[in-house]
Amino acid sequence: MKLLRIGDFGAEKPAVLVDDDRYVDLSDVVSDFDEEFFAGDGVAAIRSLVADRIADGRVANLGGQRIGAPIARPHQIICVGLNYSDHAAETGQAVPDEPILFTKSPNTLVGPNDDVRIPRGSTKPDWEVELGIVIGKRTSYLDSVEAAREHIAGWTLVNDVSERAFQMERGGQWLKGKSAETFNPAGPWLVTPDEIDDVIDLGMWLDVNGVRRQSGSTATMIFDPFFIVHYISQFMVLEPGDLINTGTPPGVGMGFRPEIWLQAGDVMELGIEGLGTQRQNVVAPR
Amino acid sequence: MKLLRIGDFGAEKPAVLVDDDRYVDLSDVVSDFDEEFFAGDGVAAIRSLVADRIADGRVANLGGQRIGAPIARPHQIICVGLNYSDHAAETGQAVPDEPILFTKSPNTLVGPNDDVRIPRGSTKPDWEVELGIVIGKRTSYLDSVEAAREHIAGWTLVNDVSERAFQMERGGQWLKGKSAETFNPAGPWLVTPDEIDDVIDLGMWLDVNGVRRQSGSTATMIFDPFFIVHYISQFMVLEPGDLINTGTPPGVGMGFRPEIWLQAGDVMELGIEGLGTQRQNVVAPR
Repeated sequence: MKLLRIGDFGAEKPAVLVDDDRYVDLSDVVSDFDEEFFAGDGVAAIRSLVADRIADGRVANLGGQRIGAPIARPHQIICVGLNYSDHAAETGQAVPDEPILFTKSPNTLVGPNDDVRIPRGSTKPDWEVELGIVIGKRTSYLDSVEAAREHIAGWTLVNDVSERAFQMERGGQWLKGKSAETFNPAGPWLVTPDEIDDVIDLGMWLDVNGVRRQSGSTATMIFDPFFIVHYISQFMVLEPGDLINTGTPPGVGMGFRPEIWLQAGDVMELGIEGLGTQRQNVVAPR
Repeated sequence: MKLLRIGDFGAEKPAVLVDDDRYVDLSDVVSDFDEEFFAGDGVAAIRSLVADRIADGRVANLGGQRIGAPIARPHQIICVGLNYSDHAAETGQAVPDEPILFTKSPNTLVGPNDDVRIPRGSTKPDWEVELGIVIGKRTSYLDSVEAAREHIAGWTLVNDVSERAFQMERGGQWLKGKSAETFNPAGPWLVTPDEIDDVIDLGMWLDVNGVRRQSGSTATMIFDPFFIVHYISQFMVLEPGDLINTGTPPGVGMGFRPEIWLQAGDVMELGIEGLGTQRQNVVAPR
């Protein structure tokens, strides 16, 4: 299934995609794709309901409706840094021996096609196409990497928007450069694991103003998603609905010589095979 | 007022303290001290109600009931690093030019007297008595340091428990060493600003097994709470109910020679003038 949330920001209705243009509305049975939904094994619970509604013709047209992030604001957004060896190289940093973890504020989460706003004082706004993991159940001290499979609700496309001066030049901890409002477009869908044959062999790309900037594959990740979930669970408890951004392939603005930074008026388009595409207008600080 | 939450973990009732032994139960009118409560100016709304209930004798005895954290699990917990000049010195790090920010997972929040559990694989668990700020309303791009006063719901005592090996030796980002379950005891109370004459002149202390280890005052903070809220608001949006841990004075285990680390069986006791005291048993990994 492809889960999505449709409607105005903060008032999205949970739904499941039928095809490019149509969806099944679940707002009468699911309050949101949130911690309670995932903790209650909601993904399994809606599967037959969705099939019944499609059979009964209870489908609606997407039309021009806004698509939100595919999950409600999570308890936490954890990011893995430098998780593609050639991205580490382009930023001049060593390939890590183990995952580097940092966070974004959960309220950075926006829809896949919402505006990305440059924060005040920003000089180095940058892009990062990434595979996102959504956690399906409470996760602590997993016994094995394999055990992580049972804890993943699905995959989603994210743009881990970053302000490099705030991230790298303001004290050494990366949070400041990752947490501005609108800095985490996600979606259009949460794709359940059964829909993806091999999550570590997905093409991914990001264009700025129609010019291809990032081009890669999850095949070149240093630490795969199952390793990452197992690893994080040794340090903290992951909650249902938590989002993990798993790192970006080469081609970020910081990696070019000279460096390339986003500007108001730019358009970012990005995608991951099987997970859909996003399109964001970059807008000036408010 | 002193707001507190009474009862089992995850099922605490919101209340207001009357005196050392008695409280006013608010669970019939307030669902929790959470984002919705603070966003709706709940602190102001309950003030006359509490006075009425005290006048009517509608008070209950604390008895041996558990006290939880004084706020519900927040949207985010942000911490300020090295915010006391002599603490920076004891850890061998430079006094920062501006606040260093990092996060703890919100689900680290526990009550003031709950057990603190050493995480698996831990070799360097440590303590940090801190002044906590609870945010009262949505906070973004404050125009002045002075404006921060209107955005603070109150103050609370926190123990920013830390695992130094995870924090300092596992990739450079501090999150891993700050986010283990039980690592953020808070409370016993959320103390409203009107109860504290001068928040930057409060004595603070922490004992381990009856031996005074930390002893200081908020007077030696490098960046005061109002500056911190104003500063953070330039990088991200703070939500009502967010918690900010403002840094610790000298005397953490990492600062001793030889270093002193917590062990199962240890007892931590800590306090800040006007904000109450905490007592935690340190327990072995599960």
